[in-house]
Amino acid sequence: MHKEIIEDIGEKELINRLGKFMPKNQLLDDCALIKARNDDLLINNDSLVENIHFNDLTIHPEDLGWKAVVSNISDLLSSGSKKTIGITISLIIPAKTEWVWVEELYKGINKALKKYGGKILGGDCSQGNQKTISITAFGIQGELELRRNACKPGDIILTTGIHGLSKLGFMIQSKINFDNNVSVNKRLIRKSIEHFCRPKVYPNFLKNLLKTRSNKKINKLGCTDSSDGLYQAVQDLAIASKCKAILNYEKIPKDKDWPKGEKWDEYYFFGGEDYELVFSLPKKWATNLIRLDKNINEIGYFANGEPSIEFQDNKKDALLKNTPFKHF
Amino acid sequence: MHKEIIEDIGEKELINRLGKFMPKNQLLDDCALIKARNDDLLINNDSLVENIHFNDLTIHPEDLGWKAVVSNISDLLSSGSKKTIGITISLIIPAKTEWVWVEELYKGINKALKKYGGKILGGDCSQGNQKTISITAFGIQGELELRRNACKPGDIILTTGIHGLSKLGFMIQSKINFDNNVSVNKRLIRKSIEHFCRPKVYPNFLKNLLKTRSNKKINKLGCTDSSDGLYQAVQDLAIASKCKAILNYEKIPKDKDWPKGEKWDEYYFFGGEDYELVFSLPKKWATNLIRLDKNINEIGYFANGEPSIEFQDNKKDALLKNTPFKHF
Repeated sequence: MHKEIIEDIGEKELINRLGKFMPKNQLLDDCALIKARNDDLLINNDSLVENIHFNDLTIHPEDLGWKAVVSNISDLLSSGSKKTIGITISLIIPAKTEWVWVEELYKGINKALKKYGGKILGGDCSQGNQKTISITAFGIQGELELRRNACKPGDIILTTGIHGLSKLGFMIQSKINFDNNVSVNKRLIRKSIEHFCRPKVYPNFLKNLLKTRSNKKINKLGCTDSSDGLYQAVQDLAIASKCKAILNYEKIPKDKDWPKGEKWDEYYFFGGEDYELVFSLPKKWATNLIRLDKNINEIGYFANGEPSIEFQDNKKDALLKNTPFKHF
Repeated sequence: MHKEIIEDIGEKELINRLGKFMPKNQLLDDCALIKARNDDLLINNDSLVENIHFNDLTIHPEDLGWKAVVSNISDLLSSGSKKTIGITISLIIPAKTEWVWVEELYKGINKALKKYGGKILGGDCSQGNQKTISITAFGIQGELELRRNACKPGDIILTTGIHGLSKLGFMIQSKINFDNNVSVNKRLIRKSIEHFCRPKVYPNFLKNLLKTRSNKKINKLGCTDSSDGLYQAVQDLAIASKCKAILNYEKIPKDKDWPKGEKWDEYYFFGGEDYELVFSLPKKWATNLIRLDKNINEIGYFANGEPSIEFQDNKKDALLKNTPFKHF
């Protein structure tokens, strides 16, 4: 079968086709428009670069489109967005890219927007030698300002969901031999691939926070997401908030079949791309929230001290000698 | 001298250094924030890709930074933005990129923002094998909606400034032999390089439009910018507005030393990157505006008919057989 590539289609037809994924006429003008109605806007930008953040062997373009949207919405949620308005997409692709790749990418983008809200507001497409999807996402700031620098000594550290699954999914998709001595069961394999290819976010997070708020005067909380791994998330909070994180290894939630061992701890803490929310709350609020939302667990607390991470049980401190994923 | 490259600096230090170009703490959080105060926001995204849109031989990174901002502000102005709020910057660079390149780029970005208003709201930096500067710019929609689809038969077509200079500047910088039979004087060479490296925009454009409005009921106008050349701009207006553009070759403003000849017409009409505004107005309004602003000239009119471009003097119709610059 002949595969249709972008340079055969030509720019004019490409823009026409991209326009079909968008609300009427969006691609036809110089700018996109947001009617703001006195809301404060949250803006997030994330770029996914081929062979740095993804490659065609490990992820299908439809999953990639989904994931590109979710990674942006996750950042919006971790800042306290109450609603996703939409996204603009800046796509860079080689001239030899197959049209079907672009089509599947946009299919995934629109599926994620349908699930979590928001629409495509505009976009552009350029030629380049490395596929790059750069998305700017717009959300409306809710009542609670979630910021990296708002954790306080005494706050409980919490996380949604569990970590490490996306890393395991990536290793399975990449055919990386993760550990010869351990057998991973089929359920965990399926779940990990699902987490890697179709990560989910928590649109009810903000609502549940508001429902369980113990003190209405508190409107700023420490929060970030675990896109670069749990360790990096806690470190970012500690540095921005200038306090020390004490983690309780035993409390950290894992999949029931997650293997034990040093390597598996590494995957868990440094894996990344799980898009879980990592945040801190006063004790009472934390207790209320955990009772309401079974997806949320306490994993430690913040204390006075130099920005750093410690384990309560210092047998696990060796873990901290690892370094998080670096882009350079 | 040892040149410091990005992978020697490391990600953490890179983010620290980039933070110094921004308002306090902007890089430290997941999202940027815009306080919208009931204004409608205009959003524009433009990506500049190395070896497609620029290369290090023809443009200095400080000029490139300036130009990246100006190309976005030009799009905002051509939609009727009354104020630039700011920009987010998504930078992709190879690990071997020299730090000084990034520093100069940001210097140019900040110079343009200082000149035309707006600040850096946030950004991210990823590794990739081709330098890419993707800017999203935010403006406030003014009283007049300028849109590609708002030209009307009978409207006068106007342009700010003159076209072709940026193309000539590019050819000079690229050492492309533009025309052996023509001598271009030093003033025009200097001016063309200036237009290519440091294009300007028209922040008073909207104010002058409002000052000269003959009928207060009209609040929507046809407009775009000539980033892809004068021909492409007029064609985009004609297609989006579903009418025919009739251009008067004799009226089209040129630099006083611009050489005559077919090639020079091509550079003029298809050159691009001049960031002039191309727009249409009812006759009376056009006359008022031209009287007020000496930078603006009438170049033709829109008529009923299939979306297309014609010259009044059909001797010039051969020009139209050319095709504009294509990205694919």
